[in-house]
Amino acid sequence: MSRVLQPKPLTAEAFAPFGNVVEARGMPQAINYGATKKFADLATIDTGTGGKAVAHLYRSKPPVYPFALRVMENHPLGSQLFMPLCSLPFLVVVAPRGKFDPHAIEAFTAASNQGVNIGAGVWHHYSLALGGVSDFLVIDRDGPGDNLEEIVLDGSILLAAPDGL
Amino acid sequence: MSRVLQPKPLTAEAFAPFGNVVEARGMPQAINYGATKKFADLATIDTGTGGKAVAHLYRSKPPVYPFALRVMENHPLGSQLFMPLCSLPFLVVVAPRGKFDPHAIEAFTAASNQGVNIGAGVWHHYSLALGGVSDFLVIDRDGPGDNLEEIVLDGSILLAAPDGL
Repeated sequence: MSRVLQPKPLTAEAFAPFGNVVEARGMPQAINYGATKKFADLATIDTGTGGKAVAHLYRSKPPVYPFALRVMENHPLGSQLFMPLCSLPFLVVVAPRGKFDPHAIEAFTAASNQGVNIGAGVWHHYSLALGGVSDFLVIDRDGPGDNLEEIVLDGSILLAAPDGL
Repeated sequence: MSRVLQPKPLTAEAFAPFGNVVEARGMPQAINYGATKKFADLATIDTGTGGKAVAHLYRSKPPVYPFALRVMENHPLGSQLFMPLCSLPFLVVVAPRGKFDPHAIEAFTAASNQGVNIGAGVWHHYSLALGGVSDFLVIDRDGPGDNLEEIVLDGSILLAAPDGL
């Protein structure tokens, strides 16, 4: 029997168990002689032991929604930050750290001005573009050790397009 | 006597002495079961000794060009990555590491799909937006030690708006 997962709007509060939302929120500091407002310390890049943070660019094509989730992954040794560069929203599908529980999967709609920093060990689906081919700046860990765990799903969980999109 | 600095287009080759250009170049890897092209390892975040990489959002208003350069800075303990989020170009003004030489200042026009990772110790001007208020994702070092050196200029070097902008 299939189950349809309806994405919720991404907020820092709702996403807190999974990581950080990277967005202009809170009171910025004025820096650069007043030319810049700095929204500081929105996320820390976790590179675990012996790792370093590296930057990649991901260019992702959107799947057809509703989309059957067939795989989830996590990076036990470091966080992974995704920041959209294309003025398009995207979807984030996550589940809590530890033993994978398909019933605990949650889906969020990130606005085009919101990034996410997914915590080490947090289960997540790979990059889910929405509305067109989308570029993301990705900051994650490079270093020794196996930093990928993957689990195969049976395809019974369907990810809906967000309301209004 | 004043001198006018004319920005050149940003290329990885021209910027190599100062850091990395973060852009979709070279042959990407296909990942995520074919849904994503990954342009890998575009920059390493240098956090020196005892530092960690953190994410900020900078919202910068453009100065009026031509703009008299009055200050340059460097971060001796770590790199600083700027990725534009607003589909606007921006300017990057840099000078080589070491003893500051005003005659060695160079200016680059970064396209809206190009970021820069400015190397540790590389002299640079603060965030220079172009065409409107611009958001940047900034990834730099948090950690112990004094990570800012600043030098005051006499205002005789004028930064021109790039050709055609």
